[in-house]
Amino acid sequence: MQPVKNATPISELGEFGLIERLTKNIIIKNPQTLKGIGDDAAVLDYKTKKILITTDLLVEGIHFNLIYTPLKHLGYKSVVVNLSDICAMNGIPRQITVSLAVSSKFSIEAMEELYEGIQMACEKYGVDLIGGDTSSSLTGLLISVTAIGEAEDDEIVYRNGAKPTDLICVSGDLGGAFMGLQLLEREVSVFSESSGIQPDFSGHDYILGRQLKPEPRIDIVKKLKDAGIKPTSMIDISDGLSSEIIHICKNSKTGCRIYSERIPIDTTTCSMAKEFNIAPETAALNGGEDYELLFTVPLLDFEKIKAIKGISIIGNITEASDGLNVVSPDGNFITITAQGWNAIK
Amino acid sequence: MQPVKNATPISELGEFGLIERLTKNIIIKNPQTLKGIGDDAAVLDYKTKKILITTDLLVEGIHFNLIYTPLKHLGYKSVVVNLSDICAMNGIPRQITVSLAVSSKFSIEAMEELYEGIQMACEKYGVDLIGGDTSSSLTGLLISVTAIGEAEDDEIVYRNGAKPTDLICVSGDLGGAFMGLQLLEREVSVFSESSGIQPDFSGHDYILGRQLKPEPRIDIVKKLKDAGIKPTSMIDISDGLSSEIIHICKNSKTGCRIYSERIPIDTTTCSMAKEFNIAPETAALNGGEDYELLFTVPLLDFEKIKAIKGISIIGNITEASDGLNVVSPDGNFITITAQGWNAIK
Repeated sequence: MQPVKNATPISELGEFGLIERLTKNIIIKNPQTLKGIGDDAAVLDYKTKKILITTDLLVEGIHFNLIYTPLKHLGYKSVVVNLSDICAMNGIPRQITVSLAVSSKFSIEAMEELYEGIQMACEKYGVDLIGGDTSSSLTGLLISVTAIGEAEDDEIVYRNGAKPTDLICVSGDLGGAFMGLQLLEREVSVFSESSGIQPDFSGHDYILGRQLKPEPRIDIVKKLKDAGIKPTSMIDISDGLSSEIIHICKNSKTGCRIYSERIPIDTTTCSMAKEFNIAPETAALNGGEDYELLFTVPLLDFEKIKAIKGISIIGNITEASDGLNVVSPDGNFITITAQGWNAIK
Repeated sequence: MQPVKNATPISELGEFGLIERLTKNIIIKNPQTLKGIGDDAAVLDYKTKKILITTDLLVEGIHFNLIYTPLKHLGYKSVVVNLSDICAMNGIPRQITVSLAVSSKFSIEAMEELYEGIQMACEKYGVDLIGGDTSSSLTGLLISVTAIGEAEDDEIVYRNGAKPTDLICVSGDLGGAFMGLQLLEREVSVFSESSGIQPDFSGHDYILGRQLKPEPRIDIVKKLKDAGIKPTSMIDISDGLSSEIIHICKNSKTGCRIYSERIPIDTTTCSMAKEFNIAPETAALNGGEDYELLFTVPLLDFEKIKAIKGISIIGNITEASDGLNVVSPDGNFITITAQGWNAIK
């Protein structure tokens, strides 16, 4: 963890004082938020729209390492991973709550940095911070975020609607966040083994950004809406393409065929994968945390989908009896297996 | 922590397996829940009603001690403290999400016990468990619950509506949960100092129950509705009467006068307080976790309120310039100060 100037112990403010200090600049922007922080509960008004709710935990030592994760980035990312889940339902996020368990090693200024990141994400994505809880912890930092969003009844996309012949699509590119993590872990271990050597991150901005500062693909949700496309199924890629396509196929009772050379991978991800002797496709299939959207659309939408920049068609849904396969460039079929990387150790 | 039979390490199931096992018996009961666990987000339908959202963290070593807290009770209580916040808005809770961070010292069976308590509370109060997250933690157990509830626009009660002459009311009795905690802490310290002596909890069921298995006062919310009473302000008593009346008066820009002999205190709470050389009123004013409702009603509702069993009128709201006071039986005025017991240490 980077040293923070003017480190004031949290005990100087107490719980109510800390919450007051961290939330003093919050301005509610959404008309759907009637009452934010400051009462027993927040009050929301979604009129006749449906409400989407999702929640994610980020635990120090499990989901993040403060040696190389700036607190501002961590705050930002803790919001993004939740907004991404709302996007994966084809919804628009409107509010979040943030709960923190903090050990005494953190100062008020450190918490302010974390909150700066949280508020940056809220501002960028038009989301209101409406509540939360703050507690001590005996060790480390834990962040629990709940996101609330909205969608019209007929807009919501589940995991279970994929049909044989549907096109399998993915936004952005994959594997970058995973390779960014490998780089960070390597430099930290080099640094800790020989303390004279400074970490070398030059030229790796893209994959580091993918790991440290992912973005929720609200833009893709909006583009699909504008193009008149409603996916038949959708999920966000937090655990890797393999794990997510298994969720879609299992819930939809289908199989799939993904063409490995069509999986979008950035050139910097490729070169870093090669440096680590990892096949780039493996990073894309099994590496987590890209927070891109994986979705299926009817074959009839082929022309419409092709016209949207930043979306790749990587394969198609098949009958369940065909199994779940990746097809290599030489025509070999490889069965897809889950390697969720975020499992309890 | 009590030993749990057939302790199977969580690693045998992994994250997805654990979630599947813990949530396999969950049946959705509320028509407001369109989709619960199993997708990127839950989907709710509140029609035109307003949505209430609240969240609370429970951290091992800070909020609970597993030496004397059965996991089933802990699960139950982690739900109750959140439902209580929805009640404090004069709303009805409908859904919860539950996130857990669990260290490897917990077995699958231990997590099942915790979930049994969570589901017991859900069943008793007609609430659907609609989602959550499960993660490892490096030390101990952390539970993050978010509750979602509903109310008509004109039913919602905030902290800021109290007016001079309003009656100050409280449900149930106070100080019991605090005295239950004192008893538990004492017996544990006696037990750990001289390991031959077994804890003696006989005859103390009431205060132990108040600490270990509190209940949200949904019944009071319904009784007030049935009687045609809308409180002018309301809050639940999680941090002690002093702290909560300060919140109401601060938000409402008023003062208050509470008559100490009118504060409802159970006889078993009184006798335990005396055993500890604590004035029972002090336990009621500064002890937390009773989860009763503190609210104000217009003077005109005096007869209606008096007719409802289980509600005590303990004083009245005054002009802000009169200050916040407790009046002792001999007519002395004592200024109320906050002693929130849950502050960050």
